[in-house]
Amino acid sequence: MSPSHIARCTQLAMLLEVSATPKPGNIDRDHNYTDTRFEHFLASAVGVYPVLEKAAHSKSGIGALIHEAVKKSTLWQKGGNTHFGAFILLIPLVMAAGKCENETCLKAQVQNVVKETTVEDAIEFYRAFSEARVKVKTVDDLALGDAASIDKIRAQGLTLFNMMEISSSYDMLANEWVNGFQKTFECSGSIRNKIKNHGINDAVVLTFMELLSSNKDTFIQTKFDSKKAEQVSMRAREILQKADMGDIRDEIHSFDNELLKEGINPGSTADIIIAGLFVALFEGMRF
Amino acid sequence: MSPSHIARCTQLAMLLEVSATPKPGNIDRDHNYTDTRFEHFLASAVGVYPVLEKAAHSKSGIGALIHEAVKKSTLWQKGGNTHFGAFILLIPLVMAAGKCENETCLKAQVQNVVKETTVEDAIEFYRAFSEARVKVKTVDDLALGDAASIDKIRAQGLTLFNMMEISSSYDMLANEWVNGFQKTFECSGSIRNKIKNHGINDAVVLTFMELLSSNKDTFIQTKFDSKKAEQVSMRAREILQKADMGDIRDEIHSFDNELLKEGINPGSTADIIIAGLFVALFEGMRF
Repeated sequence: MSPSHIARCTQLAMLLEVSATPKPGNIDRDHNYTDTRFEHFLASAVGVYPVLEKAAHSKSGIGALIHEAVKKSTLWQKGGNTHFGAFILLIPLVMAAGKCENETCLKAQVQNVVKETTVEDAIEFYRAFSEARVKVKTVDDLALGDAASIDKIRAQGLTLFNMMEISSSYDMLANEWVNGFQKTFECSGSIRNKIKNHGINDAVVLTFMELLSSNKDTFIQTKFDSKKAEQVSMRAREILQKADMGDIRDEIHSFDNELLKEGINPGSTADIIIAGLFVALFEGMRF
Repeated sequence: MSPSHIARCTQLAMLLEVSATPKPGNIDRDHNYTDTRFEHFLASAVGVYPVLEKAAHSKSGIGALIHEAVKKSTLWQKGGNTHFGAFILLIPLVMAAGKCENETCLKAQVQNVVKETTVEDAIEFYRAFSEARVKVKTVDDLALGDAASIDKIRAQGLTLFNMMEISSSYDMLANEWVNGFQKTFECSGSIRNKIKNHGINDAVVLTFMELLSSNKDTFIQTKFDSKKAEQVSMRAREILQKADMGDIRDEIHSFDNELLKEGINPGSTADIIIAGLFVALFEGMRF
């Protein structure tokens, strides 16, 4: 696969995820927040192309590439952070895809890619986080945006993979890094299984609901608390237990309204869905 | 501007146009046709990137580039023809943008680009049309998909610009070629003027309505007749005469439903809107 092909699979993954509706609590084609709108996500997916293409033929530099992706995304739109979390998963996946000689070796390659990260990757990643002002739990005593923390990372010789290991117990995205992108590949399988009967929109929505029902969303935990995240997952589980698709759709709509009203957005769940869509598209899914 | 930057302005133009809603009669983020869906337009905009980048550093070969764009678009999605008409305008605009040393010379350059087309461009364009099975009025006695017609083009020495001249009296897109992309640049200005007060979605919707109100849509004329196209334009004019934006929105929704019910889609109007969005983005519009 050419770097251009891989970059386009990534763009399309970002576009399909943000378009899928209703995706409870998150921005989708029918929902905007006040300052961040659907169109900002379109512009971000478009603008970031050169960084994705570069990542597809890069053998190292994950941290710098994530940093560059965030910068490019915000150059093309004024809605702020749209895809930071997604880039944490997409950049290593895109780099792994670039190393693959066929569509089936992605799972093995991405594990190598994240394990080969360096202290410089950790520092670049820290800088990116600090600039993007993303809500995030402080990793141990390393305060984001604090120059002293960068010295600590260097002194302790922490690689980006080490930092993800530290966060993996409570952060879904870090957990993907540490556990071979397990949920990402599960989502890819789920979307591919559902697309024939449900179409691409509903395949994404149902997979989103399944992922949310079985995992407390990190973004909700950080913004609210663990209890709130667990309540949201429980509510998703209840809805999925309905057998009839018509009923489920109505319930998902109500669920969406409830979450939007409370300002609860399961952003980390959406990030894993984007990564899953990328895998499915890279492995040949079309519609 | 780099070819990549130009290609991304084009992708974003395609995405913003198909997303804008309600866009009476056409596919938008809230409306699909049976076989062609919103997501097919997203995939087409993504898939065509390499052809756009190539066009941005090409000095000739419009016909072959349009042909290649149509092929690439349909490789990435199974919804059929999504952007044929748009490519007729976008490819010369992208080529012109690639020749520009700043954002302001586009209007002059695009006129040169279309005038420099050759007989080979006409033949390639004919082939693309024939393969895409787009509804189109036969140009004089040149029947689309007919090998004898290609011989006639060659025998008469018709360039693609000549063919557009022949069609320009009844075809909005051909008329753009012949008249310096006048409506395209007007749409660009209108969108840029409206974006501050109305946001990007409504700026596109209102400009679409204005264009439709003052021009009989070619696609409607071909699919139905000139009378139907005139009725649609008249209805758009009536709606725009309402002073209050809230009222207009409701009326546009009703208009949308009427057109969808009758299967009337102002496709050529949408193509010019995409071209106008490209010009605005190339000239620096962000949101």
